[in-house]
Amino acid sequence: MKNKAVIGIDIGGTGTKLAIVDEEGRILERSSFDTQAQKGGSSFIAAITDAVVELQQRVSSSHTILGIGIGAPACDELAGTISGAANLPFTETLPVRQLVEEQCGLRTRLVNDANVAAIGEGQFGGAKGMSNYALITLGTGLGSGVIVDGKVVIGNHGLASEFGHTFVVRNGRKCGCGQNGCLETYVSATGIKRTVFELMSQYTVDSPLRNYSFHQLSARDITQAAQAGDFLALEAFKLTGETLGYKIADLIVLFDPQAVFLAGGLALAGPLILDPARESLEKHTIAMFKGKSELKLSELGSEDAALLGAASLIYRS
Amino acid sequence: MKNKAVIGIDIGGTGTKLAIVDEEGRILERSSFDTQAQKGGSSFIAAITDAVVELQQRVSSSHTILGIGIGAPACDELAGTISGAANLPFTETLPVRQLVEEQCGLRTRLVNDANVAAIGEGQFGGAKGMSNYALITLGTGLGSGVIVDGKVVIGNHGLASEFGHTFVVRNGRKCGCGQNGCLETYVSATGIKRTVFELMSQYTVDSPLRNYSFHQLSARDITQAAQAGDFLALEAFKLTGETLGYKIADLIVLFDPQAVFLAGGLALAGPLILDPARESLEKHTIAMFKGKSELKLSELGSEDAALLGAASLIYRS
Repeated sequence: MKNKAVIGIDIGGTGTKLAIVDEEGRILERSSFDTQAQKGGSSFIAAITDAVVELQQRVSSSHTILGIGIGAPACDELAGTISGAANLPFTETLPVRQLVEEQCGLRTRLVNDANVAAIGEGQFGGAKGMSNYALITLGTGLGSGVIVDGKVVIGNHGLASEFGHTFVVRNGRKCGCGQNGCLETYVSATGIKRTVFELMSQYTVDSPLRNYSFHQLSARDITQAAQAGDFLALEAFKLTGETLGYKIADLIVLFDPQAVFLAGGLALAGPLILDPARESLEKHTIAMFKGKSELKLSELGSEDAALLGAASLIYRS
Repeated sequence: MKNKAVIGIDIGGTGTKLAIVDEEGRILERSSFDTQAQKGGSSFIAAITDAVVELQQRVSSSHTILGIGIGAPACDELAGTISGAANLPFTETLPVRQLVEEQCGLRTRLVNDANVAAIGEGQFGGAKGMSNYALITLGTGLGSGVIVDGKVVIGNHGLASEFGHTFVVRNGRKCGCGQNGCLETYVSATGIKRTVFELMSQYTVDSPLRNYSFHQLSARDITQAAQAGDFLALEAFKLTGETLGYKIADLIVLFDPQAVFLAGGLALAGPLILDPARESLEKHTIAMFKGKSELKLSELGSEDAALLGAASLIYRS
């Protein structure tokens, strides 16, 4: 008898990654293609189909594929569509779930990428066995997924869990969403870069970060500078963590989760972000919630969290 | 054949109210006793039992009582206990659900008072048929209940939905919880009173409110002054509504509810609080959520919302 496996797909603005994942969360085979090389929706769906067929052939003698789980930005989970994604090679409303299901002949689920990472953490990572938790993805923006009673909070229109667009500074930094002071303008790879530039304007201390243009500077550069002891970079992490902990206190009184997990590129900085966030969260937690929720790093590698989460959509359903 | 009815109980710091409620949410009989006249937990439970027995006798020829639903502050819904309530005549952890169930011989449910009002709004009020909504109670403090997929969000320890203790002003007003800047220090009967006193310190304009001591002044006085056109009172409502709308925007991006309802004493001010709150919410709602959630007044009279909600606990289960 063949073993069971599923295909997880992580649709991103740069690359689309696919993997065959077994029931223990092990990645058996991988594949990927350049998202931007596709021209339009049908070309994009064809690229997915080709990759799925090719992956399936690699394990056809040993594994039965149960279905396809897809994590993607800007998707409507209820309708199974992607529309208006800023970084994908199509702008129309594309019925991705239906098209992939039809063309690959496999049961398909499509879920928002931030929710997918939260689901994956519960299936294969640090949230195993938890019914109430949240996961925050610190990438270019700040994504989040919240699990209540074992289910992702989707809301009335499939739009819930936009923690990155809760407010943290009244009339604060301009956000891409049109508002001011959204959390992700302070806490994300882009947010910490903005903080570094603000600090460069406030302090006179020298720093290797003063050699970068805004376009050049990445969160990785800031992390490396902080690890080398750079004052500005350390200060930027401290402020970012403090702000994050302050807002996670809101999440905790609203959802009373067992734990909150940090994932994404900026979480790779580990204690640089986690320590000040924990300290700030502890300080801002009201008495009745003290000691009830943990703030932790995701246990899934940030590279594969979305892929594993996408795969777990099929195992869970 | 007898008709069906349930007993709803609203335990408050001043009075404990009881009612027999039929399946359409009509109150058939009422009763109440002075909470503070009871001395200790067993006296309190005896008072409830006596009132239940007496109420039951009044309808014994026409109605069968299905059970007892209780809304109370400071309760642990999972354990069925009340403990550490600031305004109740006992301080020990009291297994209220079990004691009432045993002594009245009726199936009993015990739920946090803010959640009870939210459940009641769904059963008998403006949220009928909605699966995702929130209710905010503006009383001495700010309570809230959030319904996701038709169920109250309780969280991992039964503590969720403390919207009143999310932060709205960094290092803002001292809160009874020990933190600073909690929403309820600005938006509640007490919060608007604090705002009136702040405004009296900032403006020189005369106002009838300047004749009240802090202890004397009530939200009702402020409402009456505003209705009579008093500048300070109107300004206080404007600021209170603005702050409320600003924070409801956070609720909306997190929960994506179909509607948010306002209840409690301060909501009796109607458009005085609703209009500036709606305007602020509209202004602070990000594009993808525009027009998706309504802010409304509760359709249950604020006097009976908790009673009806408590009764609905039994109809729902």
